[in-house]
Amino acid sequence: MQNSGMLIIISGPSGSGKGTVVKHLGPEKNYALSISVTTRKKRACEEEGKDYFFCTTEEFERMRNNGELLEHAVFCGKYYGTPRVYVEEQVKLGKAVVLEIDVNGALQIKEKFAGAVLIFLMPPTMAELKSRLINRNTENKETIEARLRRANEEVKLIDKYDYLVLNDEVESAAARVDTIVDAERLKPCRNLVIINSFKGDVL
Amino acid sequence: MQNSGMLIIISGPSGSGKGTVVKHLGPEKNYALSISVTTRKKRACEEEGKDYFFCTTEEFERMRNNGELLEHAVFCGKYYGTPRVYVEEQVKLGKAVVLEIDVNGALQIKEKFAGAVLIFLMPPTMAELKSRLINRNTENKETIEARLRRANEEVKLIDKYDYLVLNDEVESAAARVDTIVDAERLKPCRNLVIINSFKGDVL
Repeated sequence: MQNSGMLIIISGPSGSGKGTVVKHLGPEKNYALSISVTTRKKRACEEEGKDYFFCTTEEFERMRNNGELLEHAVFCGKYYGTPRVYVEEQVKLGKAVVLEIDVNGALQIKEKFAGAVLIFLMPPTMAELKSRLINRNTENKETIEARLRRANEEVKLIDKYDYLVLNDEVESAAARVDTIVDAERLKPCRNLVIINSFKGDVL
Repeated sequence: MQNSGMLIIISGPSGSGKGTVVKHLGPEKNYALSISVTTRKKRACEEEGKDYFFCTTEEFERMRNNGELLEHAVFCGKYYGTPRVYVEEQVKLGKAVVLEIDVNGALQIKEKFAGAVLIFLMPPTMAELKSRLINRNTENKETIEARLRRANEEVKLIDKYDYLVLNDEVESAAARVDTIVDAERLKPCRNLVIINSFKGDVL
């Protein structure tokens, strides 16, 4: 009834905790993860249609040229993209389809997918972001500095997002995303069936 | 921090349960009720600045002509209006200021007050609305029919609202309004201080 789907886009600097927050989203909220299509080789542990849709470069280019991708990018010489049809199917099923993506991808999708909900995730302060990146201990100084410079650029775009979620604690941040999804489900554009029934049942 | 205020406007047909839902809103959510200004006489049980701001016709007309009212209307020859300054003060204090008002008043305010959040409250079906109006047993047949005709007009305007809340049960409906307020507090426009701190703290 008040259960229609939507595309939820989560962006935020490296170190903001996107992946962890997504893992803590409420299982009862009817989420689905967006599945990317890629031209890179399938690894042994991966499953077609679950981890990725795998395809050839020719197939990818055909999809891209036919407007079948909501966004796309190249990493290490391989294509990655978000297939529109998969997102649309899940949204029709009432799912809140979650897509973690960088600011450029997010703003591309905002133009192309009506009703997409853009969430920007951030630690409570820039100093906290810096300390998280340093304490991960997984990257060298140059990589960390590049990520920080990028973060400075990314926060300039927060105003283009629909919501800002502070990630002070993973559970609280995930609960805030759940709250956003609950509220978005109450938008008139997601309740056309019931609104039309009100308009049709003349008293 | 993520606690900035807003104006919440609740409309809905007579019989949708606006007053009861407002009474059940979460006390921890920092709500305030909007207080109207009126030219009608103060009753013994009423308190100035709590139930209403009372004023003379000349004072009311001066406020109206100076643009100090977000909306105004006449009932039984007396003026009623919503003073902008009171709402603005409460919003600055971080309150979610709740104003119950009809669709005409709501749409007037939407134009005048940036960031006002419009919520339309409805029973789950038109048949349920009709049966609630009949079972109230407080009005004659003509009054009920006039209210139903008005409801038919009001539901045509749901698309102009930000949210549709179904009032199947008072507690659930109030919880939905609480959820909307929680989500609205995460909008970038209500978090400018922290966003500016991100932009200012160059890493």
